[in-house]
Amino acid sequence: MPVLDSPASAQRYLPDPEVLSPNQNLLPLTAKANAQGHLEVGGCDVAELVARYGSPLYLLDEQTLRTACQQYRTAFVDNYPGSSQVIFASKAWSCLAVCAIIAREGLGFDVVSSGELLTALTALEQLQIPNPEARIYFHGNNKSRQELQSAIATRVTVVVDNWLELKILAELATPEQPVRIMLRLTPGIECHTHEYIRTGHLDSKFGFDPNQMRDVFQFITEQPALNCSGLHAHIGSQIFEQQPHQDLGEVMIGWLVAARDYGLNITEVNVGGGLGIRYLEADDPPSIAEWVRTVCESVKIACDKRQLPLPKIIAEPGRSLVGPAGITAYTVGSRKEIPELDRIYLSVDGGMSDNPRPITYQSQYRVAIANRLTAPLIETVTVAGKHCESGDIVVSAAEVPKTESGDVLIVMATGAYNYSMASNYNRLPRPAALLLVEGESHLILQRETDADLLRYDCLPSRLLPAN
Amino acid sequence: MPVLDSPASAQRYLPDPEVLSPNQNLLPLTAKANAQGHLEVGGCDVAELVARYGSPLYLLDEQTLRTACQQYRTAFVDNYPGSSQVIFASKAWSCLAVCAIIAREGLGFDVVSSGELLTALTALEQLQIPNPEARIYFHGNNKSRQELQSAIATRVTVVVDNWLELKILAELATPEQPVRIMLRLTPGIECHTHEYIRTGHLDSKFGFDPNQMRDVFQFITEQPALNCSGLHAHIGSQIFEQQPHQDLGEVMIGWLVAARDYGLNITEVNVGGGLGIRYLEADDPPSIAEWVRTVCESVKIACDKRQLPLPKIIAEPGRSLVGPAGITAYTVGSRKEIPELDRIYLSVDGGMSDNPRPITYQSQYRVAIANRLTAPLIETVTVAGKHCESGDIVVSAAEVPKTESGDVLIVMATGAYNYSMASNYNRLPRPAALLLVEGESHLILQRETDADLLRYDCLPSRLLPAN
Repeated sequence: MPVLDSPASAQRYLPDPEVLSPNQNLLPLTAKANAQGHLEVGGCDVAELVARYGSPLYLLDEQTLRTACQQYRTAFVDNYPGSSQVIFASKAWSCLAVCAIIAREGLGFDVVSSGELLTALTALEQLQIPNPEARIYFHGNNKSRQELQSAIATRVTVVVDNWLELKILAELATPEQPVRIMLRLTPGIECHTHEYIRTGHLDSKFGFDPNQMRDVFQFITEQPALNCSGLHAHIGSQIFEQQPHQDLGEVMIGWLVAARDYGLNITEVNVGGGLGIRYLEADDPPSIAEWVRTVCESVKIACDKRQLPLPKIIAEPGRSLVGPAGITAYTVGSRKEIPELDRIYLSVDGGMSDNPRPITYQSQYRVAIANRLTAPLIETVTVAGKHCESGDIVVSAAEVPKTESGDVLIVMATGAYNYSMASNYNRLPRPAALLLVEGESHLILQRETDADLLRYDCLPSRLLPAN
Repeated sequence: MPVLDSPASAQRYLPDPEVLSPNQNLLPLTAKANAQGHLEVGGCDVAELVARYGSPLYLLDEQTLRTACQQYRTAFVDNYPGSSQVIFASKAWSCLAVCAIIAREGLGFDVVSSGELLTALTALEQLQIPNPEARIYFHGNNKSRQELQSAIATRVTVVVDNWLELKILAELATPEQPVRIMLRLTPGIECHTHEYIRTGHLDSKFGFDPNQMRDVFQFITEQPALNCSGLHAHIGSQIFEQQPHQDLGEVMIGWLVAARDYGLNITEVNVGGGLGIRYLEADDPPSIAEWVRTVCESVKIACDKRQLPLPKIIAEPGRSLVGPAGITAYTVGSRKEIPELDRIYLSVDGGMSDNPRPITYQSQYRVAIANRLTAPLIETVTVAGKHCESGDIVVSAAEVPKTESGDVLIVMATGAYNYSMASNYNRLPRPAALLLVEGESHLILQRETDADLLRYDCLPSRLLPAN
């Protein structure tokens, strides 16, 4: 079995809040090793939280999330003379508490379903924030008629994806109850992590194809109840390159100018999101400030070239806001050694139901043992999930200290696309989530119970004994 | 855009119940085209069900599920002189109604969590089936202490996976409250779909490695409260080959003999499950009868060779019981054409949240338009899901007739690992499910509502306005 050099994991993963953006840290900004050598986040001992709340347990560091929000806003103020709005791609983690923090930091919301709309609106209402509709943009490639009706009724902006939506909105909206829209277009730029393509026509289910845009502009001019304020494009997710966003400004401003031919005054450009975060030490995403600067420069250059007034820029970060603020805590259970294969399996009490990213995208993560944070790392193990499925491997090569059943293993950078993608596979209840701040823990998502899993089950009488 | 020859989809996909096993059909056994050219399942018009219950909608054909259960039981009676028990791998679709049908057909249950245990036990109790514990086997590579306590308390059989579980059981069980166990071993045989490996030591998180077995046997002889009745191995899922199961009998009986060296009288051999089903026309799994015959022959040969009495065989089908009995109905929404790329996207109102298999395993499916079942197929489209994710593609190349928004698109063979793996990604409510039989539809899973999605959300007071 592989024996490693022994740097303390604390030194390997603990954040450097002085120099880095939250998206460049593996652990939340408040993470540290306390006097007992335990991991502390938000002033709370993670092992103690597991003892109190059970596991698996999602943990969210309020300071890291707020810092990321502030870095986005500050960077726009510093780099863009025009107006700007940062909205949270809430699909990364849509729940009341996350939305409330985001809202208190002055950000808005990208929602993609009536469920996400309800969540964002409820959070804004609970916070008594005026004009909540000005903060919400409704996305999606196949909004239902009902969702479009909700959007009109709540007066949020609809990011129109396709002709069907456009025509339904034209039918539903009236001069008395108009609808504010943006148009999503496929910009011919797409990124998948470290790859980047630039084409005329992009093979994407999302948005209007370039060949449709002029017909769309013409159609909109004939619809008095459709108030078209802007254009939208999104080029991908978990992106480390800057070039695609440099190119995007030129594309978007090009279409803004084209819309003028139809008398449409487009004043907003939504550049989507996509900034990556650091899951592994080797990951090197741009900082939030660098990303914002690139986006702003790109739009400024495209506008200056044409002597156009600067549009409002809207950006939609999701992962880079909430991803680095979250960790997941598990309890270590069984250990299986296969010396002939040089393999050690360490099982934890969660897996693909609370974090489907490893099995879905082959995503890699780093781990630490929360109650042995400063212990020397002595071996490489495969962290196996609890699910009855060979592919349910949480981390395929994790460096750990000596461990025992009952230890608390944490997985880093799980704030995005973990809770939001969680299932009840194997009828496992979904974990609780805690907000950690100033030495206190606050429950933000209750743990499901086994009984909850039967809540929707019905047993037709034809199956009962009398029959 | 590709134009196809025009065979009616009805002819292509409708089942042939006379000659085939349920696992060899693409549509449930009762599927037919009715007088309106609509798809009918269990005597119900699928398009009418969607009009009444909304979509997405899971549909389960009771007759197909019952037929598969009966084929397993009959095949064991026909092929094995010893005793046998067929148990449903309930992770494929654990809910009260599915468990109730399975139970009424005389089958038992493989459960892998306290949630699945609760579901199976509740169904058995509702059906007033005596000695429900005799029908239940508790699996999993990392059962919690609490789950092991529940297993002892409910007197089900525990399929012990590893040393930790064995030691916890030895600690918890008493002569007054003993526990019935089987031992899971890694047999050195593993299948992934069409591949098959045979090694001495298998790289698997599940079960005892061969090098551990003799120590395990020795340990058990010293534990009067551990009543070891059998051995278990499972070699994979969605398997089309027969050879691995032929080999498995020899391996299992070999270990059964080894246990005799320690005075252990092993009388049960659990061969797991794994029989594949037909998702595409080209898929050609063995029938249920052929699979059972192979398993039985394998055990008989290994026993005859050693002049041993035949053990009880336990088999654990999941997918091949419930997979072919299910379809999912969606409503067609937007259509996007990109002529330059020869691509048509047809969006539906569900996707990776109700069926994560395509994005997780690149699984392929066939579709039909339920309200145009006999219409000629005229084009190949990409069926896109509703989720804000490029990878949310339900079917990448689907042959369809002329379609319109509002049509009902069904995906075939979704009875296994769809509902059970479903999430609320994008805060989409999970679909309802109906049991279809004799022209009647019975609700077996209620549809979630948007409000349900907020049920577990808590908003800490520190985030509210006064703070």
